[in-house]
Amino acid sequence: MTPDRDTDTVTLAHGNGGRLMRGLIESVFVRHLGNPWLAPLADAAVLPDAIEEDEALVFTSDGVTVQPLFFAGGNIGSLAVHGTVNDLAVAGATPRYLSVNAFLEEGLPLAQLERIVESLAAAARACDVQVVAGDTKVLPRGLCGGAYFGVSGIGRRPRDLTLGAEGIRLGDAVLVSGPVGDHGIAVMLAREAFGLGGTLASDSDSVLPLTQALLDLAGLRFMRDPTRGGLATVLHEVIHATGLGVTLEEARLPIRGAVRSACDMLGYDPLYIACEGRVVAIVAEDEADEALRRWQALPQGRDAQRIGTLDPHHDRLLLINDWGGERLLQELEDDPLPRIC
Amino acid sequence: MTPDRDTDTVTLAHGNGGRLMRGLIESVFVRHLGNPWLAPLADAAVLPDAIEEDEALVFTSDGVTVQPLFFAGGNIGSLAVHGTVNDLAVAGATPRYLSVNAFLEEGLPLAQLERIVESLAAAARACDVQVVAGDTKVLPRGLCGGAYFGVSGIGRRPRDLTLGAEGIRLGDAVLVSGPVGDHGIAVMLAREAFGLGGTLASDSDSVLPLTQALLDLAGLRFMRDPTRGGLATVLHEVIHATGLGVTLEEARLPIRGAVRSACDMLGYDPLYIACEGRVVAIVAEDEADEALRRWQALPQGRDAQRIGTLDPHHDRLLLINDWGGERLLQELEDDPLPRIC
Repeated sequence: MTPDRDTDTVTLAHGNGGRLMRGLIESVFVRHLGNPWLAPLADAAVLPDAIEEDEALVFTSDGVTVQPLFFAGGNIGSLAVHGTVNDLAVAGATPRYLSVNAFLEEGLPLAQLERIVESLAAAARACDVQVVAGDTKVLPRGLCGGAYFGVSGIGRRPRDLTLGAEGIRLGDAVLVSGPVGDHGIAVMLAREAFGLGGTLASDSDSVLPLTQALLDLAGLRFMRDPTRGGLATVLHEVIHATGLGVTLEEARLPIRGAVRSACDMLGYDPLYIACEGRVVAIVAEDEADEALRRWQALPQGRDAQRIGTLDPHHDRLLLINDWGGERLLQELEDDPLPRIC
Repeated sequence: MTPDRDTDTVTLAHGNGGRLMRGLIESVFVRHLGNPWLAPLADAAVLPDAIEEDEALVFTSDGVTVQPLFFAGGNIGSLAVHGTVNDLAVAGATPRYLSVNAFLEEGLPLAQLERIVESLAAAARACDVQVVAGDTKVLPRGLCGGAYFGVSGIGRRPRDLTLGAEGIRLGDAVLVSGPVGDHGIAVMLAREAFGLGGTLASDSDSVLPLTQALLDLAGLRFMRDPTRGGLATVLHEVIHATGLGVTLEEARLPIRGAVRSACDMLGYDPLYIACEGRVVAIVAEDEADEALRRWQALPQGRDAQRIGTLDPHHDRLLLINDWGGERLLQELEDDPLPRIC
């Protein structure tokens, strides 16, 4: 807390462009995020990077509106950084710069904002990415659920990298880097309404080590982080883009017992629950074992599994169990889930 | 309206990452914004630009939460583009790419969203900037005031350009590119609560022609678009950054009669009211006439004025009238204004 703050909650005056707003930005955002490009507090960051001839610029945005703002394993601040960093990572890029749009609700305790921005800054440092620009708006009480963030990111990646649904072929292997559904269930458990306890933590984390471990594999076709809509939704996007089918083996799906139990109780399917630190990769059959070996050698990929195959026999998302029973996994339709990312 | 939409209002299911969300994005966002970099709907846009050796990358963000969403002269969509384009422009950059974070409220009529995205796309085309990435979240009814946008932008500018408060010297001239306060008053008039009519339109527009007209002047010190907090707040930032004083000549301030009348009625000072298409520039005394001549030759700068001077006799913001009377313009403190940008 610095004396320049004047109040201990966000007020509408913090969004008016005047002295209180400057104080808030200096005492909270700049203090945690400070770097030579942010410090001038100008309209735009002038960045020193020339992009090398063999590199391309990658640009993305992610909005974060999680409720509640704090949950086991993270909060909206760290989640906002991981969301954007991971969008860049699965595109094969190394993140360089972030820009943060903050929408804050009047009445948000500054101590909470402080914890959020601290986590945001720590996550950015851990990902070796600089927050170089930003904007803050304050919304009237009741109009914002505490805080929303929109984070945009610039990264660089090899210009000749080919990565995308168009490279996917029949017979390719589907890999997932770790247990699915931890984030979504951890957030649901953090909601008082459910009255449930539990030690499950969100998987919110950077996936950069996972994505960079595979970039030099010629057979790497596609990577995506399964956030909203979970693993099943990423695979539906693949089916939609390729017209091919995917068969998943139920016994190989990494799902924690606590996630299974919570899903059973609440009536959800873990395959549709958001992750915030996992990668789904599609890799040529002949490099699938090597890809899996590389992931399992990393702390973030210890529980990685090869879970399925691009299947010539159908054009849908099928789950088969040990006894050969089949279940069709539909595309997510009306919203069966609380908003969790 | 396309058949893939299923409903005529935004629902929570539009934010779930599944089929309805894909339909919404394809039928509204991609249809209006479509370009080769956005079309793959991947996590991140891979951009073809190599930055030239003598150029620097410029990156910025602006959040837009205007209420109501529509007003004379624009709406939240065009305003969102102009906000970010103008932040890049006053930094001396040419905008290249935008990324849009959309926060939409459940219940927002799709026809309104359509008009907003159409305006956003039209504004981007007019500024010759591509929307290459984005993210959409849907918030529960009552939690978002209809729609918020966070827009980030990448631009390029000459690497050796020096522009910023640190170059400002005593005796420099203060210029403004046109009448101040039009945007803020137009938005207030659009609020039913005021019960006022009037033909005043927002000045929401790109300031690129204005900023680029001055870039080759060696005496160009500083440019800023006076948004939240208006002209007085930009000049307070200059005073805060330089320790110098600014004297404004009241008779030279371009303010429309309709803005003066509305301010008199509502008890506001037009110098603190937001503009969304104006530039404040600080220029060396010996190039001030040339800068003014260039601005006045442009349709956007027809009413440009030289309004003041960096003054050695004090360290505050002073307004002097024709009879030599002085008025001290204080830094904006508690919020005297409705939220208007």
